[in-house]
Amino acid sequence: MKLYDYLPSGNSYKVRWLLSYLGLSYTHIPIDIHKRETHTPEFLNKNPAGQIPLLELEDGRLLAESNAILTFLAEGSDLIPDDAFERAKMMQWMFWEQYRHEPAIAVARFIRNYAMDSRSDELPALMTKGEAVLNIMDDHLSERDWFVGTSRSLADIALYAYTHVADEAGFDLSQFSSIKAWLARFEAINVHICMGDIPL
Amino acid sequence: MKLYDYLPSGNSYKVRWLLSYLGLSYTHIPIDIHKRETHTPEFLNKNPAGQIPLLELEDGRLLAESNAILTFLAEGSDLIPDDAFERAKMMQWMFWEQYRHEPAIAVARFIRNYAMDSRSDELPALMTKGEAVLNIMDDHLSERDWFVGTSRSLADIALYAYTHVADEAGFDLSQFSSIKAWLARFEAINVHICMGDIPL
Repeated sequence: MKLYDYLPSGNSYKVRWLLSYLGLSYTHIPIDIHKRETHTPEFLNKNPAGQIPLLELEDGRLLAESNAILTFLAEGSDLIPDDAFERAKMMQWMFWEQYRHEPAIAVARFIRNYAMDSRSDELPALMTKGEAVLNIMDDHLSERDWFVGTSRSLADIALYAYTHVADEAGFDLSQFSSIKAWLARFEAINVHICMGDIPL
Repeated sequence: MKLYDYLPSGNSYKVRWLLSYLGLSYTHIPIDIHKRETHTPEFLNKNPAGQIPLLELEDGRLLAESNAILTFLAEGSDLIPDDAFERAKMMQWMFWEQYRHEPAIAVARFIRNYAMDSRSDELPALMTKGEAVLNIMDDHLSERDWFVGTSRSLADIALYAYTHVADEAGFDLSQFSSIKAWLARFEAINVHICMGDIPL
């Protein structure tokens, strides 16, 4: 199994975290998005969407979209609820993460880290959207330990990835006490790896 | 079962199409997004994200995010592939739809229909993104009848919703012959309903 991956990407980190949790070995293939390595003819032939992470199975089959990769790798594990409605709620949070959370918080982080000269005018609107996202998460977590049901699931992995680096996007997490407690619970999972780690 | 729904919304239409396909009865509750009915205290209490569609089960449990609702309602049907990798590819296309397709094509359509005075400056970038999205779909469909495997799946429903009204967003579908053939195949499914139809 090969993982085409950019280390500072939260979307890539989700997959590396899960591979570590599941104890699966893989070959890590670094892709530098700043050098447009996701837009070479070779890469676009593997993923026409030009995005990492990208998983390549031993037989050459390819799977893109971080949250879809999570659902594939985690099948049969304790990270997917047995109950059909809880599974659907997990999917709800995962789609919400890609639709509302990532486009606000991950993009604000990207701009602050790499594109302040060209894109800083986008930040005010992104900060407003990100604050709304964090408020929804904090309210939800005020009454429960994990996003769905009573134990960790793929929804927690998907949402942890960019939330735990929201400070790099300019958000002050100290005002979100329920999020902070949830981050600590997540980090206490014994296989936890940090962003930038490459477990092999 | 109740569906909180805005008829011109492609995201809502996905759910109505599937309910029709599965022959499930439900109560249709119209929500006018232009009157901010998704942001009343009552609605936000049901869905803090302030979005339709929203499904309410008989026992009061609530499920948001159109593609998550599809996965819930379709479980056990012929719209979800039996093969684990094909299921993951279906998820890949559904996440891609929400991450890349909807934010380009649905937003351009919304602006052209309702917000030309205030948001027309967003259109050039959205048209570029939308053209890229349609090219990826057209290339993919040039070699197959459906997005995943050899038969229709939830990925086709998710992608059909806003693609078939891409003309309202300003895109010319006549140049995408494989997309046009796929739209025709989808519309030949015998339970097909049109956007705006409310089957009960």
